[in-house]
Amino acid sequence: MEPQTVTLAHILEAQTAIRSFARRTDLHPASASVFGRREVLVKAENLQRTGSFKVRGAYNRIRLLTNEEKKSGVICASAGNHAQGVALAAGKLGIQAAVVMPIGAPLSKIEATKAYGAEVILSGASFNESLEVALALQKERGSVFIHAFEDPYVIAGQGTVGLEILEDLPEVKTVAVPIGGGGLAAGVALAIKEQNPHIKVIGVEPVNAASMLKSFQNAEPIRLTQCHTIADGVAVSAPGTLTYSLCRKYLDGIITVTEDEIATAILSALERMKMVAEGAGIIALAALMNHAELLTPAVAVVSGGNIDVNALERIIDRALMSAGRRTRLKTAVPDRPGHLSKLLELLAQQGVNILSVSHDRLIGGLEIGQTAVEVEMETRNHEHVQNVINTLLAKGYSVS
Amino acid sequence: MEPQTVTLAHILEAQTAIRSFARRTDLHPASASVFGRREVLVKAENLQRTGSFKVRGAYNRIRLLTNEEKKSGVICASAGNHAQGVALAAGKLGIQAAVVMPIGAPLSKIEATKAYGAEVILSGASFNESLEVALALQKERGSVFIHAFEDPYVIAGQGTVGLEILEDLPEVKTVAVPIGGGGLAAGVALAIKEQNPHIKVIGVEPVNAASMLKSFQNAEPIRLTQCHTIADGVAVSAPGTLTYSLCRKYLDGIITVTEDEIATAILSALERMKMVAEGAGIIALAALMNHAELLTPAVAVVSGGNIDVNALERIIDRALMSAGRRTRLKTAVPDRPGHLSKLLELLAQQGVNILSVSHDRLIGGLEIGQTAVEVEMETRNHEHVQNVINTLLAKGYSVS
Repeated sequence: MEPQTVTLAHILEAQTAIRSFARRTDLHPASASVFGRREVLVKAENLQRTGSFKVRGAYNRIRLLTNEEKKSGVICASAGNHAQGVALAAGKLGIQAAVVMPIGAPLSKIEATKAYGAEVILSGASFNESLEVALALQKERGSVFIHAFEDPYVIAGQGTVGLEILEDLPEVKTVAVPIGGGGLAAGVALAIKEQNPHIKVIGVEPVNAASMLKSFQNAEPIRLTQCHTIADGVAVSAPGTLTYSLCRKYLDGIITVTEDEIATAILSALERMKMVAEGAGIIALAALMNHAELLTPAVAVVSGGNIDVNALERIIDRALMSAGRRTRLKTAVPDRPGHLSKLLELLAQQGVNILSVSHDRLIGGLEIGQTAVEVEMETRNHEHVQNVINTLLAKGYSVS
Repeated sequence: MEPQTVTLAHILEAQTAIRSFARRTDLHPASASVFGRREVLVKAENLQRTGSFKVRGAYNRIRLLTNEEKKSGVICASAGNHAQGVALAAGKLGIQAAVVMPIGAPLSKIEATKAYGAEVILSGASFNESLEVALALQKERGSVFIHAFEDPYVIAGQGTVGLEILEDLPEVKTVAVPIGGGGLAAGVALAIKEQNPHIKVIGVEPVNAASMLKSFQNAEPIRLTQCHTIADGVAVSAPGTLTYSLCRKYLDGIITVTEDEIATAILSALERMKMVAEGAGIIALAALMNHAELLTPAVAVVSGGNIDVNALERIIDRALMSAGRRTRLKTAVPDRPGHLSKLLELLAQQGVNILSVSHDRLIGGLEIGQTAVEVEMETRNHEHVQNVINTLLAKGYSVS
């Protein structure tokens, strides 16, 4: 039953097959406060079941197992969305699923995967180690290994996202889609270009995990020696052979986004669009935010929303700092009553909101009689921060 | 042009009038992982323009000004959503708007209101002080004061939310709606009960700001001496005379929710539904989460999503702590190399993820040679926390 490649017919067949299982997600208008008059829409796969598009491919793969295979169950390795997709799809089809996750995976994701009915095995310090454990276990148990992207039926399932975009917005001019292993990008690009080659389909990768771009440049799949990004869902060190060849055939180009651009896009989605997206999920929108030359109407596939709240807090902090909206600075005040409040009053006069203050008499390098003060505050922008610093310096405070 | 009260005809007329301006928001299915088999939907007014329903009432009021009134402009006092609603509606209608906001209002809300084209006047230490400033300024300038709730046309505008719910889900059995000043609740309840009196319409207030409930109990509008809640958008100390009488006539009851229930609901929306809601916006959903006896299908009006990210971080922290998913504990270790890592290893063995560690040699009350250690960690639930504490105690660590 394995085809050597994927065709539009496979994707159309997948669409019919997953209809009773996957949610048909909406195209939401992106915020005018971010895009102005540019017409940008979001394909909200963060509102998909399990919070990501992965259920589409997983279900499409697992439904096609033989009866024998179904009895032996499925297994996969994943720290995130693929795990939940496999767990839910297998559960729906009445098939046992085992998921190997790295030790230290966010507890929220472990709990979610268990809640979908899968057996969770915590083993391996990294994804690659978990993968080895899963492959060993697959042999031991005789179960079927479900790959996250290098599988024609998985790619066909993800391609249904492209069909829905075309159905809802046939006049779309640009579709931006995240690339991790390339399964989603391959499926979406194929679904769209085979129907309308005039639409530009752009793949998006983090600068820090641009394995598909590097592979394009080398004209063959390349393995990165490291890839570390806040978009952890697309931190895949090498594309598959099949996903590489499909992406190469169908994509019009690849855009990369920086870590700061990703963090800023997550914050914009949260504040402006009231929408939670994970790092990997937001990179296509980040690309549209930073590339005004892309033709509109444009659609960004927001592929997932499963962000651990602890990570979300760190990303919000990073984005606020990078926009000059949150500032931490250190200064010193005389260690006598009244001097701290004088400092805080001065800051308040500058229009900052103080979030926290800590002071410490024992920090090295200060003169006796001085107390170190660290202030965390809400500021308007970089210019505001500079004005505040200038005022403090003019009043004789040290600032670092 | 002032009617003495509000009728269904006023709301139907408002619906036609605001169509070109306000977004017709969707009913989204609430997460099965929160509600199980109960059919609960969300009327997503957090995805409304400006991030809250307030634009509906503001536009409906301002469009009805006389030409003379339009020339003199409008003014209001608000720390939040009403400000943005008035600013955007006035801008759309080509009318000058001034908004008085309390000093210390979140910078994000100040900036957003300015971005909609309003003049922002920062004055007053509290909302009530800002209100006095606004009223004084209104007399001085001869502009029109736009009340946030005690106005028949504002109430009629908010009532359009109720019409849309009935159009999209005529079989709804329960509608839960937040109460602040009571404008939204009055309008929605009227719109629904006048069309189908069998549908239960329930108002929801924070325990800490239950001015409408207290007013019901006293059979007249009551002013609370204090109301402080993380649902700051409904921290209104007294309902209006008109909103009180309409709520009394049309609501089937009022449910109150605690601060922890509100924080937990915000976190659930964020994690499970990938949706950002503010405290005031989520209270109706919180009520449905905690009252399984309410008949389904049920709709919760999620009235707004404008939550300052600094506040959001504090609320996430509160909700995680309250669920036993984040834990901070203090212990002490001998001040010699290796002892801190031994402690952290012991914690890792218990399956906790460590978020931060701080240690301090100089904290009072410890024996010489002991170092205080404060650990912040991700835990599974309260039982897990208790197991961790028991293990530490069994190994001879102090825990607080």
